[in-house]
Amino acid sequence: MTSGRIIGFAAGLDLEDVPDAVRHEARRALCNIVGVAVGGSSLDASQISVRLATKLGDARHARAVGTGCWAAVDRVALVDGIMAHVLDFDDTHLPSVYHPSAPVFSALFPLAEWTGSSGRELLTAWVVGLEVGMRLALALGREHYDAGWHVTGTAGVVGAAAAAGRLLQLDEGRMAHCIGIAATQASGHREQFGSMTKSLHAGNAGASGLVAALLAEGGFTAAASSLDGRRGLFHVMSPNPDPKQLDSGLGSAWVLPENCIKPYASGVVTHPAIDGARALKEEYGVAPEEIDSLVLRVNPLVTELTGKDDPQTGLEGKFSVRHCAAVGFLFGAAGPPEFDDAVVRAPDVVGVRERIRVEPDPAIPHMQAVVEAGLRSGRTVRVDVVDARGTPGRPLTDDELAAKVDGLCAPVVGAERSRELRQRLIAVEGEGSIAPVVDLTVGL
Amino acid sequence: MTSGRIIGFAAGLDLEDVPDAVRHEARRALCNIVGVAVGGSSLDASQISVRLATKLGDARHARAVGTGCWAAVDRVALVDGIMAHVLDFDDTHLPSVYHPSAPVFSALFPLAEWTGSSGRELLTAWVVGLEVGMRLALALGREHYDAGWHVTGTAGVVGAAAAAGRLLQLDEGRMAHCIGIAATQASGHREQFGSMTKSLHAGNAGASGLVAALLAEGGFTAAASSLDGRRGLFHVMSPNPDPKQLDSGLGSAWVLPENCIKPYASGVVTHPAIDGARALKEEYGVAPEEIDSLVLRVNPLVTELTGKDDPQTGLEGKFSVRHCAAVGFLFGAAGPPEFDDAVVRAPDVVGVRERIRVEPDPAIPHMQAVVEAGLRSGRTVRVDVVDARGTPGRPLTDDELAAKVDGLCAPVVGAERSRELRQRLIAVEGEGSIAPVVDLTVGL
Repeated sequence: MTSGRIIGFAAGLDLEDVPDAVRHEARRALCNIVGVAVGGSSLDASQISVRLATKLGDARHARAVGTGCWAAVDRVALVDGIMAHVLDFDDTHLPSVYHPSAPVFSALFPLAEWTGSSGRELLTAWVVGLEVGMRLALALGREHYDAGWHVTGTAGVVGAAAAAGRLLQLDEGRMAHCIGIAATQASGHREQFGSMTKSLHAGNAGASGLVAALLAEGGFTAAASSLDGRRGLFHVMSPNPDPKQLDSGLGSAWVLPENCIKPYASGVVTHPAIDGARALKEEYGVAPEEIDSLVLRVNPLVTELTGKDDPQTGLEGKFSVRHCAAVGFLFGAAGPPEFDDAVVRAPDVVGVRERIRVEPDPAIPHMQAVVEAGLRSGRTVRVDVVDARGTPGRPLTDDELAAKVDGLCAPVVGAERSRELRQRLIAVEGEGSIAPVVDLTVGL
Repeated sequence: MTSGRIIGFAAGLDLEDVPDAVRHEARRALCNIVGVAVGGSSLDASQISVRLATKLGDARHARAVGTGCWAAVDRVALVDGIMAHVLDFDDTHLPSVYHPSAPVFSALFPLAEWTGSSGRELLTAWVVGLEVGMRLALALGREHYDAGWHVTGTAGVVGAAAAAGRLLQLDEGRMAHCIGIAATQASGHREQFGSMTKSLHAGNAGASGLVAALLAEGGFTAAASSLDGRRGLFHVMSPNPDPKQLDSGLGSAWVLPENCIKPYASGVVTHPAIDGARALKEEYGVAPEEIDSLVLRVNPLVTELTGKDDPQTGLEGKFSVRHCAAVGFLFGAAGPPEFDDAVVRAPDVVGVRERIRVEPDPAIPHMQAVVEAGLRSGRTVRVDVVDARGTPGRPLTDDELAAKVDGLCAPVVGAERSRELRQRLIAVEGEGSIAPVVDLTVGL
């Protein structure tokens, strides 16, 4: 099958063959996703899934991050995946709108704890899962997403299976079955965006991918043509698949570094405006009381997706580019605290928000923005955002990533443990096993 | 949403509102699927899944039929669903090519054991799950199947969820979420036909449907438009959905009695020829040694799907209408024993098979056949099969069903327990709990 090379890659990748830059980006993605999952661990969707995992058995294979809840390995995968995606703050592969880390993390982290795998083994499987998932998302094509599929659920289950299969050291034959068993379970409709079930897609992808690997390990078989057969994944689920994206340049032209770590907890289209508003204060020293008017010139898609004028809740705030820019300006941040209901209604935030006007302009690309402040002094300050933070042209620095992770984890585990957690994750190859890292995701 | 009435139906159905004939057909389907699952319990796919269920925890919620293996309720669902579908001997709704019982059974049977539900509660939920799944399969339309979806996986997860939700007595609000959580997990590609993973589709549908109900019970939410929204189940997964099939005549014009119980363990298109060959001996007293030639006139689809001339294994025998007709003639049966490798190669079977000629004839509908035996005496005996056994025009009699179940269960549990098992299933409303019935699916 077309997927012949990807099977060999998944079963055989050695960490020595992964360039340093790719490895570093992979470690950053791991650090980010653990932080995001810990940050999402107290939300309702997470807590409901933890209660169900506990209700369904008392196996102590592994612990869900953030909560320390013990459960069977696949139940932890479901919970970890929900936690990692529920804040909409995980990483994104922009061309495919795929969130690479949540499904793979959710399969791999509990499996590594259960099997006592080393950090090096974890990182190898992690690279496999990210690269396979991202390539599969590209192969399914943008039309797959446009047709209504949540590609994080569909490509994610295969990425998760490949990673879990690699950690279980499946040979090529079993890896092919593992990937086939996973491919036929691809699921998740975009209709669920805005409901708890969106995050379930990531958890299901991780859990189903993990179970696919365990079934294949046990001798369960799937069709050889699971991906590219006439009634396989590509043709059934994509109007215009491009299967060569799976194999082309595999192992040399890495897709993994195209992954983007989100700086802000709102949709990516709001990010250029947030960056511009931040720059007004951080680079030009503009103070709130100086501002007379604040104009955001953005692509019309931005107002279409995030045009809510007068948000009343945190969730509505994420869909209001005005709110996003206001908190960016005031706090230099747009993380979970800035989307708290109280912040959305706070007088100083409302005060800035009301002075913001949004001007859709089709000439501006959707990941760029122009922000113009008219000051009481009569002066105008203009910021042109070409490369928004977290896009390939301006990736988060390691320090910004550290600050993001601390912002998410410190409220849960304390500042000191948060720092140790991210330091150990970014050097995960040195860990003899994962359990001590999981310890650090839980407060004392 | 369109699905408003189906939600109320699923949450509110009372057994008193189910006509006797519908109830009886539902009980027959239950009796059949338990028999088929017990019969499939020793196959490789079943045994691998049992071993994985045991490996993943030691919860003792419920037991997989046939094996008596204890596991958590959703793990038993996965196993039961694989067992119920792995023989390709479960029931079929011909217009939608949907297998109604396997997914619903796999969710419901372990859940009923775990919750200590009565037979009456089980039967009520069973009727809900069959009717909802079959209507959803009709609503997805034949084009859904033609596009490559295994509708038993896709409609099945929703049927299973509705049944599990009913047994858990979810109110309408939670039932709507339950069905939404399930709908977005619809999966299963026809590419897997012929591999173990085909049966996994049924098991996954059951397990995922069950977990959807448990999540909804715990407060997990899904989009209100999960089925009929622009990016919901219907529009993402069917080229030509017909959502009104869900609601039209609901509760009065029942779809459930259209379900067909398979008399033979091969594809339905072989069944008219098997019936015709049986009739030669059973009705006309033709003996094997009298036969000079035996002609099967069948629709060309029959040769396209089951045209293997010279099968060497049991599985190949299922794809050989000549073999199917030969065993029908010789043994008056085409159950799992007749698809044993040794039977396929037995001299008496080969002897009859070699005298069979297949003549495709587009004038013959694909669920009909003409069987003509040319006898050594010069006489010709012709059988016209218009209503094949197991089709709506000629459903299996209760006695034939009993014989089928005994044929499947007696080798596993003994003749006496098999008889008691089917007698209790066909009168399941009288059972105070399901555990004693599950006992009977396991040999002493």
